[in-house]
Amino acid sequence: MPTIDDIRDAATRLRDVACITPLLESAAINARTGGRVLLKCEMFQPMGAFKIRGAWNRISRLPDRERARGIVTHSSGNHAQAAALAAQRLGIDATIVMPSDAPDIKIERTRSFGANIVTCSREGGAREQVAAEIMDRTGAVLIHPYDHPDVVAGQGTVGLEVVAQCRELDIDVDIAVVPCSGGGLIAGTSLALHASWPDAEIHAAEPDGFDDTRRSLLSGKRETNAAGATSICDALLVSTPGELTFDINRKHLAGAASVSDSEVRAAMKTAFSDARLVTEPGGATGLATILAGKIDIVGKTACVILSGGNVDPDLFADIISGPGSVNRESA
Amino acid sequence: MPTIDDIRDAATRLRDVACITPLLESAAINARTGGRVLLKCEMFQPMGAFKIRGAWNRISRLPDRERARGIVTHSSGNHAQAAALAAQRLGIDATIVMPSDAPDIKIERTRSFGANIVTCSREGGAREQVAAEIMDRTGAVLIHPYDHPDVVAGQGTVGLEVVAQCRELDIDVDIAVVPCSGGGLIAGTSLALHASWPDAEIHAAEPDGFDDTRRSLLSGKRETNAAGATSICDALLVSTPGELTFDINRKHLAGAASVSDSEVRAAMKTAFSDARLVTEPGGATGLATILAGKIDIVGKTACVILSGGNVDPDLFADIISGPGSVNRESA
Repeated sequence: MPTIDDIRDAATRLRDVACITPLLESAAINARTGGRVLLKCEMFQPMGAFKIRGAWNRISRLPDRERARGIVTHSSGNHAQAAALAAQRLGIDATIVMPSDAPDIKIERTRSFGANIVTCSREGGAREQVAAEIMDRTGAVLIHPYDHPDVVAGQGTVGLEVVAQCRELDIDVDIAVVPCSGGGLIAGTSLALHASWPDAEIHAAEPDGFDDTRRSLLSGKRETNAAGATSICDALLVSTPGELTFDINRKHLAGAASVSDSEVRAAMKTAFSDARLVTEPGGATGLATILAGKIDIVGKTACVILSGGNVDPDLFADIISGPGSVNRESA
Repeated sequence: MPTIDDIRDAATRLRDVACITPLLESAAINARTGGRVLLKCEMFQPMGAFKIRGAWNRISRLPDRERARGIVTHSSGNHAQAAALAAQRLGIDATIVMPSDAPDIKIERTRSFGANIVTCSREGGAREQVAAEIMDRTGAVLIHPYDHPDVVAGQGTVGLEVVAQCRELDIDVDIAVVPCSGGGLIAGTSLALHASWPDAEIHAAEPDGFDDTRRSLLSGKRETNAAGATSICDALLVSTPGELTFDINRKHLAGAASVSDSEVRAAMKTAFSDARLVTEPGGATGLATILAGKIDIVGKTACVILSGGNVDPDLFADIISGPGSVNRESA
């Protein structure tokens, strides 16, 4: 399990690669929620999502003999871009296994960073299986998208930054809400936030039908999502929590809430209209849980991580303008 | 003419009202331009544009006897919202004269800050005339949108922040490109930037057909735009430079360039896709001049001010997704 020192070390390593993303506030969003909402804007990372933090911290630590073998990973798109970008900067061959229905923008950008793309079905364990076959055949090193201490420590730098930024504003965070799929971002962030604010309540935000972390926290063991569910949140469709990440999250999380597609769309429209921010569906789940009233922040200070902004333009256009696309109550 | 100390004083006064907006960078935009582009993100101000800086600095300095008379101003929308917000926070009555074709979102939000709205034609000097009638009738104090030293000093805080943020990154700016209409933002910014970087080249970015500052710089006197021109840049349609602002700008600007609607749309799409930023048309003119190759920044560091993000959702949706809306060369 990574320590706070591992996270601090990752922050040093990320200095010239990732940016310290702004922590923004919108009076209109505060008014909607009855609390104070600090928006941590990870869409401004070089590849448009937090994933560069973990990918760089993991890949840049590979010894030369492993770098020479190349890397392989599987991802619905944001870790794909991050791993491809990190590998390109380090001069390492990268093969990325992506579901064939990943957003075009994510596939194109991953390719633009010089990676080899192998597409596969989104069903079952297809991605992991194809990646394993490539490892066997080529000797490439697997860069797991979340279930590795270096990846978790890298994602934890989001939390370190939130602490530093809040200290500068002289405020403490009562509640943090973090989009969750495999659980790497929330695991790392929890470690960092709890090192400074041991009493902060940390909540996972998941799409309806992909609430494996919520159910796992309740049962105390890693649960799996039923097959056949669908969600607009292409980045959050992992079927079960990671081993390492769940081990951390079971100790640190106060709970989890899930949101429907229409709640996510309403949150994206609100982020656009009230805060002039571009979020992708998965990146807006944390804000959606609060706007939909599923996590109560009245009178409290909440940090909401907007984890990414890689959204196909046509979908974004439909969400901000299309009739019927918006939950009028919250938009 | 405001001094650098006036601008520093404005920054102190703005501490709890405006935010220090992030200075962001996009590798993709750098690659498109051949230079290093620092994007100063004014859409993250409380009302979505830089205008709160000047409006607050002006209105908060009014003595009690003037506050009691109320304020009146005329604006296409961003200064309107800023003046309304400032007046609301200070408990001052505000009447705002707006052109009837201002974007719905700007009219609605101005009203949401508790101001009385009076609409008028956009033609000729209608706005100024209606505002003058209200002053005569009610005794309200005119808060000019740009042509006042307190307003210019307030807008100049953008430049102060750019200098501080660049110092932290240990970089100097060679070129700054600033959207320009009445000229308040670029006048204040020029004063602040030249106080630290006397050799920085500062360029105005205007819409085609509204290039009064460009022509005024060439002729040495305040030129007026021909009637009948149209532009997507609703925030930049003032017909002639301000007296005070032109007096500053003629001494400080290296030049000006103008851009077409399609160049502005392409820049807005690029800001969305490459940097996940929401800009309004007028706010994107600076970026548009660079992306369209009208200001050469190859090998240089350019600060581009993205001055606002108050754009009607339907227009934004059309720009990021609609066929034919994009200049394919630069998108």
